[in-house]
Amino acid sequence: MIRAGIIGATGYAGGELVRLLLGHRNVEIKWYGSHSYIDQKYASVYRNMFRLVEDVCQDDNLTQLARQVDVIFTATPQGFLASALNEDILSGTRVVDLSADFRIKDVAVYEKWYGIAHKSPQFIPEAVYGLCEINREAMKGARLVANPGCYPTCSILSIYPLLKEGLIEPSTLIIDAKSGTSGAGRGAKVANLFCEVNESIKAYGVASHRHTPEIEEQLSYAAAEPVILNFTPHLVPMNRGILITAYASLKKLPQPDGSLALPTEQQIRSAYEKYYKEEIFVRLLEPGVCPETRWVEGSNYVDVNFQIDSRTGRIIMMGAMDNLVKGAAGQAVQNMNLLFGEAEDEGLRMPPLFP
Amino acid sequence: MIRAGIIGATGYAGGELVRLLLGHRNVEIKWYGSHSYIDQKYASVYRNMFRLVEDVCQDDNLTQLARQVDVIFTATPQGFLASALNEDILSGTRVVDLSADFRIKDVAVYEKWYGIAHKSPQFIPEAVYGLCEINREAMKGARLVANPGCYPTCSILSIYPLLKEGLIEPSTLIIDAKSGTSGAGRGAKVANLFCEVNESIKAYGVASHRHTPEIEEQLSYAAAEPVILNFTPHLVPMNRGILITAYASLKKLPQPDGSLALPTEQQIRSAYEKYYKEEIFVRLLEPGVCPETRWVEGSNYVDVNFQIDSRTGRIIMMGAMDNLVKGAAGQAVQNMNLLFGEAEDEGLRMPPLFP
Amino acid sequence: MIRAGIIGATGYAGGELVRLLLGHRNVEIKWYGSHSYIDQKYASVYRNMFRLVEDVCQDDNLTQLARQVDVIFTATPQGFLASALNEDILSGTRVVDLSADFRIKDVAVYEKWYGIAHKSPQFIPEAVYGLCEINREAMKGARLVANPGCYPTCSILSIYPLLKEGLIEPSTLIIDAKSGTSGAGRGAKVANLFCEVNESIKAYGVASHRHTPEIEEQLSYAAAEPVILNFTPHLVPMNRGILITAYASLKKLPQPDGSLALPTEQQIRSAYEKYYKEEIFVRLLEPGVCPETRWVEGSNYVDVNFQIDSRTGRIIMMGAMDNLVKGAAGQAVQNMNLLFGEAEDEGLRMPPLFP
Amino acid sequence: MIRAGIIGATGYAGGELVRLLLGHRNVEIKWYGSHSYIDQKYASVYRNMFRLVEDVCQDDNLTQLARQVDVIFTATPQGFLASALNEDILSGTRVVDLSADFRIKDVAVYEKWYGIAHKSPQFIPEAVYGLCEINREAMKGARLVANPGCYPTCSILSIYPLLKEGLIEPSTLIIDAKSGTSGAGRGAKVANLFCEVNESIKAYGVASHRHTPEIEEQLSYAAAEPVILNFTPHLVPMNRGILITAYASLKKLPQPDGSLALPTEQQIRSAYEKYYKEEIFVRLLEPGVCPETRWVEGSNYVDVNFQIDSRTGRIIMMGAMDNLVKGAAGQAVQNMNLLFGEAEDEGLRMPPLFP
Repeated sequence: MIRAGIIGATGYAGGELVRLLLGHRNVEIKWYGSHSYIDQKYASVYRNMFRLVEDVCQDDNLTQLARQVDVIFTATPQGFLASALNEDILSGTRVVDLSADFRIKDVAVYEKWYGIAHKSPQFIPEAVYGLCEINREAMKGARLVANPGCYPTCSILSIYPLLKEGLIEPSTLIIDAKSGTSGAGRGAKVANLFCEVNESIKAYGVASHRHTPEIEEQLSYAAAEPVILNFTPHLVPMNRGILITAYASLKKLPQPDGSLALPTEQQIRSAYEKYYKEEIFVRLLEPGVCPETRWVEGSNYVDVNFQIDSRTGRIIMMGAMDNLVKGAAGQAVQNMNLLFGEAEDEGLRMPPLFP
Repeated sequence: MIRAGIIGATGYAGGELVRLLLGHRNVEIKWYGSHSYIDQKYASVYRNMFRLVEDVCQDDNLTQLARQVDVIFTATPQGFLASALNEDILSGTRVVDLSADFRIKDVAVYEKWYGIAHKSPQFIPEAVYGLCEINREAMKGARLVANPGCYPTCSILSIYPLLKEGLIEPSTLIIDAKSGTSGAGRGAKVANLFCEVNESIKAYGVASHRHTPEIEEQLSYAAAEPVILNFTPHLVPMNRGILITAYASLKKLPQPDGSLALPTEQQIRSAYEKYYKEEIFVRLLEPGVCPETRWVEGSNYVDVNFQIDSRTGRIIMMGAMDNLVKGAAGQAVQNMNLLFGEAEDEGLRMPPLFP
Repeated sequence: MIRAGIIGATGYAGGELVRLLLGHRNVEIKWYGSHSYIDQKYASVYRNMFRLVEDVCQDDNLTQLARQVDVIFTATPQGFLASALNEDILSGTRVVDLSADFRIKDVAVYEKWYGIAHKSPQFIPEAVYGLCEINREAMKGARLVANPGCYPTCSILSIYPLLKEGLIEPSTLIIDAKSGTSGAGRGAKVANLFCEVNESIKAYGVASHRHTPEIEEQLSYAAAEPVILNFTPHLVPMNRGILITAYASLKKLPQPDGSLALPTEQQIRSAYEKYYKEEIFVRLLEPGVCPETRWVEGSNYVDVNFQIDSRTGRIIMMGAMDNLVKGAAGQAVQNMNLLFGEAEDEGLRMPPLFP
Repeated sequence: MIRAGIIGATGYAGGELVRLLLGHRNVEIKWYGSHSYIDQKYASVYRNMFRLVEDVCQDDNLTQLARQVDVIFTATPQGFLASALNEDILSGTRVVDLSADFRIKDVAVYEKWYGIAHKSPQFIPEAVYGLCEINREAMKGARLVANPGCYPTCSILSIYPLLKEGLIEPSTLIIDAKSGTSGAGRGAKVANLFCEVNESIKAYGVASHRHTPEIEEQLSYAAAEPVILNFTPHLVPMNRGILITAYASLKKLPQPDGSLALPTEQQIRSAYEKYYKEEIFVRLLEPGVCPETRWVEGSNYVDVNFQIDSRTGRIIMMGAMDNLVKGAAGQAVQNMNLLFGEAEDEGLRMPPLFP
C-alpha cells in the first residue's frame, strides 16, 4: 500500500485527489491537510465523502508528514512548497506538487510572472515536469514532480505533435482557452459567486496569465526554439472542463516536384498519431469531430482534434479535458503511478460522466 | 462473466447503465439496443465512450437477445416491455425493467394513470419491485424485476421508516419533489431546450404525475393501510439530481404518565437507523444537515434526513439522490447484483463527484 | 422630480433599484449609498451602469440624506434601519425599507426570529406593510413603508384570496418555496460560489426561516384567525426567480341540498378574480397553466394559479415572480409610486425578458 | 404610429422584437407571423406576454402584410425572404431582414456558404447593411435593410476602427467567438437540449461558419483591401450573450526619428474613440477592463476594449453584447428608428439587467 498525504485537501483539486485515491487499489490516504479546516471532519467540508472518509483535517506540516507517508501531494497556493521544502523531506518521501513552484526552470521567469521570490531554487533542477505523455521516462526515480497546470496540460497536448514535427510556425501560435469555474478555486470571492459567473463569459488575465511562460517553456522544448505566444483564458459558467482553441500557420512542405504545399489532413493526423497512438488518456477524435468538455467530465481523458483552413493557411487545434482530473488531480495520480511502478491508469479508469 | 444486453442504450438512463457496467468486474455488455440509432457506432452517439465502446447500436429485438445474454435491461418507453415480453424470454434470461410496466400490481391503476392498455398483465404478479433496501429478499430468484421510478425511489426511502414505525399520519403526506432535467429524457422537445429550462423553475404534472400511484402503493405496504398523498414534481435547471421534501403530521405517542406527546428527535432518528443502519447506499445525515443533490452526484447514494417542526407538529423529511444512478441505472445494477449473487455494491463504489 | 436616495445600492436589490429608477420618468437618484464601496464609482461596481451612472458611492448617512431627498430606499442588513431611524429623518423624507425591520408588528416575534434587539420599536405601529395589492389604501400618506420580503410577497399573493374567502383550512397550510441565488445576496461566502450552487438543489432554514412569521402575520389578517404554517425555502441554481408551491386542504362548502362538497374549480377561480381582476401586476394564468419563473424575469409580475386534487381534497397554489423585482426593488418602486401619487406602474412597464 | 409586422415572431429573435417594440412609444405591432403556431394565441407560446399581447399568430403572408404595415421584420430561415420578396412588397413597405439573405453583395459567395440558390438577387444591390454605427447615412431612404448577423455585429464593431485606421495587419486577423445558446434558435434538436449544452463548451462550424464571409466583406471595406480571416464560434452554456476575442498583429508605425514602433495604448484608444465617441450603443470600456456579457444582457450595448501584448506584437480586441438585442432585434429596432426618423435609441433605453 502506498501511503499518501494531501496538503490542501479541501480545495477543489484536493477534493478531487481524495475522490480518485479512494478508488485506487493500492493507496491509503493517511493525512488530510487543510489549513482552513483544522480539526474539522473532512466529510463535513466535502459531504460527498460522508461515510467514506472518517478523518479529521490536519495542519499543513510537511516535515512531520514526510516521515509517515510515501508520497505527498501539495495542492497549495503558489510559494507554499518552495518555502517549506528541504532535503529531509525529499529524502523521506516523494512529492507531487500541484502548484506552480517547480514547473518553470528559469527562476527569473517564475519570479517575474508570479511576483514572489522563489525560496528553494536549489530543487528546481531535479524537479520533473509531470506531463506523462511527454516526460514519462524522466519520471522514473524522480523525487519531486511538478504537476502541470490545467491550461498548460490541455494546451501542450493539443499542440505538441505539430510543433515537434515542424508542421506549424511557432511564432504564429495563439491559444484561446476556456475554463469552468472550479479552476478559480474555492476561495470566498465576490467575482466567483454564482450570480456573478452564471449567464456570462469573459476573458481574464489577457496577455498576463501565469500559465503563459509554462506553456511557452514546454513548447519551446518541442519546437527546439524559443516560442512566444498569445494565451487568453476565459471563464465559462460551468463547473468543470477546459477547452483549448489554438491557431497557427501551417508550414509549407516541399513537394516531390520541388514546390511547396500545405500539409494534408492525413499528414497532420499522422503526426498526432505518432505521439498519441499508444497513449491511454489522449484521444485523437475522428475527422471532423470537435472536442467538447462534456465528453470528458470526471475522467482523465484529453480529447484532441484539428481543422485545417486552407483559405488562411492556418490550422485550428482543439483540446478538451476535465481541469480537475487530467488538469490537476488525475494527472497527479498518473504521475504517482509512474513513480511507484503502478499501472499508469490505476485509479483512473472511470469513463466520463454524461450528462 | 454476466452477459448483459441493454434495450434503449442511447437514452440517458441507458447511457448511465453503460457507464456503470463498464466499471463492473463481472459484466460484459453484449448488446447496445437503440431503435433510433441502429447501425451507428454507440460511441458516435455518446462520445464519452469513444475508445471505450466499439460496438454498433442494434435493433430492439428482445427474443433474439434473450438467447444471448444472462440479463436484459429495458430502458424503454412505457408499454414497450409489456408488449414484447413472453415466457420464452423470461425462461431464458432475467429482465430488469427500468420502465413502469411492471411496477404497479393493480392493472387498472396502471392503465388509468398511464393511459395505455397493459399487454401482458400475466407477468405482473411475479415481478418484484426492485427497491433493494426494502425488497432485498424477494429479489433472489426473481426473473423479472420492476426497477423503481426515480421519484418513487427517493420518496419512499425518505419516508418509509416513519410510516413503517407508525410515527406519522399517512393521510397528511405531501411530497414536493425537484428533479434535474435528465429525468425528462433525451427526446427533442422544445420544452427541454437549454434556453427553455435554464434560469427557470416550474411545477409540472401537478396532482396527475404517473409516479404518484407507484409511491402510494409502496407506502401503503409500509403503513399497512391505503395511503393517498400529494406528489408535485418540479423541473430544476441542472443535469442530475432529485430532491424530495416531504411533509407529514407526527403522530402523538403515549407517554409513561398517560399523556400524549410528539416523538422526539431521537425517536425519529432511531426509526431511520433501524432500517438503514446496515444499508450501504442510504446515508442518514448528521442532525441538522439537509440533503443536497451535489453531494450524491454520480453515485448510488440516497442521503436522507429530517427536521421536526414543533410549532406545527409536522416533520419535514428530505432525501437527495442522483436520478440516473440510484434513481435508474445504479439501482438496476444493484438489482442485477442481487439476482446474480454479486456483492451488492459491485460496480457502484465510486464516490460522488463534486463539484 | 422625486429625489431618491438608496442606502445599500451595491447589493443585488440595490442594483435593481438603480436599474428601475433609471427608467422612471419622474425620479432622480441623488445618492448611491454603499458602505463597502465608498468613493468608488458606482459603475465600476456594477459595470452594466457604465455611462449610465456617473456617481460615486457614498457612506450610509441617513440623517444627511434625509435633508436632500424625498424618499430613501434602505436595502440594508437587518437592524440597520431600526438603529438609525429617528423622528428627524421621518419628518423630512419618506422611507421605503427593504429590510425586515418594520414588517412585523409584534416586537417580540421580530426579536425571537431575527435574534437581535429592535432599536426603534416606537416606529413599528406607523409602518405600513407595503404589499400594494392588499394594503394600497394604507399606503397613502405613510411615512414609513415596510417593503415585504421576497418569499412573503409571492406566498401571500398566491394564497390570500382563498384564505380571505374561507375556502381553505388555515391549519393545513404548507409552503414549499424555491428561490434563485440572487436572494442570497452579494456577500463573499463559500456557500454561494458558483461551483457550490450550480448543479444542485437543497432546502435550507427548514422550520426556522425568518420569513415564516412575516407570512403568518399577513395570512392571519386574511384568515381573521392565527395562522401557523410550514415554510421551507430551497436554493435553485439560477440567478432570479421565486416559485411558491403551497398546499392546503379545501374547506367543504354547504350545498343547496344541505350536503357538503369541495369548492369547484370555478369557485376557486372566482375567488382569485375577485381580488386580482383589476391588479396590474398579478396575473391569474389560464386554467391548467403552471407558473414558471422564466415568464416573469425582469418584470414586476406575479403569476399565480392553482390545481385542485380531488383525490386528497387539497389544493395546490402556485406563484412565480422575480425576487429582485416584485420581491424587492420593483415592489419598492410600486410603493414609492403610491406614496407620491404616480401611476402605480410607472417605471415598471417592461415586459418580462425571455429567454 | 409606425405599424409593424413580424414574420417569424415565435423564434427567439422574433420574441425579442415583440418585447422591444412593446416598449417603443411610436410602434404598434399589427401582425404576429408564425408558420409553426398559426391560430394559436401568441401569449400561449411566449407566456411572458400574457395579458400584454392578445393577438393570435398568423401565417407568413408577406404580400398581404405589406399592404397593412409600414415596416416588416423578417426573422426567418435563410432563403425565405429571397424567395418571397418582390417589387410590390418593397414599394408598399420597408423591410428589415434579420436573415442573411441580403447581407452579402456577391451572390456567388452567398450561394457557396449558404448552399442555396438566391431567388431574388436583383434586390441585393439596394439592400443596406444595417450596422448603424458604420452605415448610418446609407440607411436613410432605404427600402430594404439587411440586419447584420450576431457574430458579425460584435466582431466588426470590435475590430473596425483599427482596420480603418491601418493599425493592424488584416491578414493576421483571428476571431474566436463565444455565444449563448439562444443563438442556436428554438428548433427542437437533441444538440440543443438542456443536458447536452449545460456544463459543456465546444467549438462548431470551425473554418466553415456562414458568418465568416459577412465579417470578411465588411472588414474588407474598412481595410480597403480584401480581408481573409479565421472565425471560430463556440457554444456557451448560457442563454444570451456573445463575446468576441480577436487577435491581430499590430502594424509598426514610423516614428519621428525614422524608426518603426508599435502603436501605443493611447494611439489605439484614440482610434476607437474617433469612431465611437458619439455612439450611444458602443461603450469603450476603461483601460484594463475586459468586456463581459453579463454587463450588457437585455440591452443594446456593445462593450469593447483591447489589450496590447508587447511580447508578441499583437493586440487582443474584445467585444461583448446581447446576441438577441444588438445582435438581432435591438439592432433591427435601431435600424427601423433610422428609417422612420425616430430617435435612434427610442425603445432601446433600458439599462442592462444584472444579475
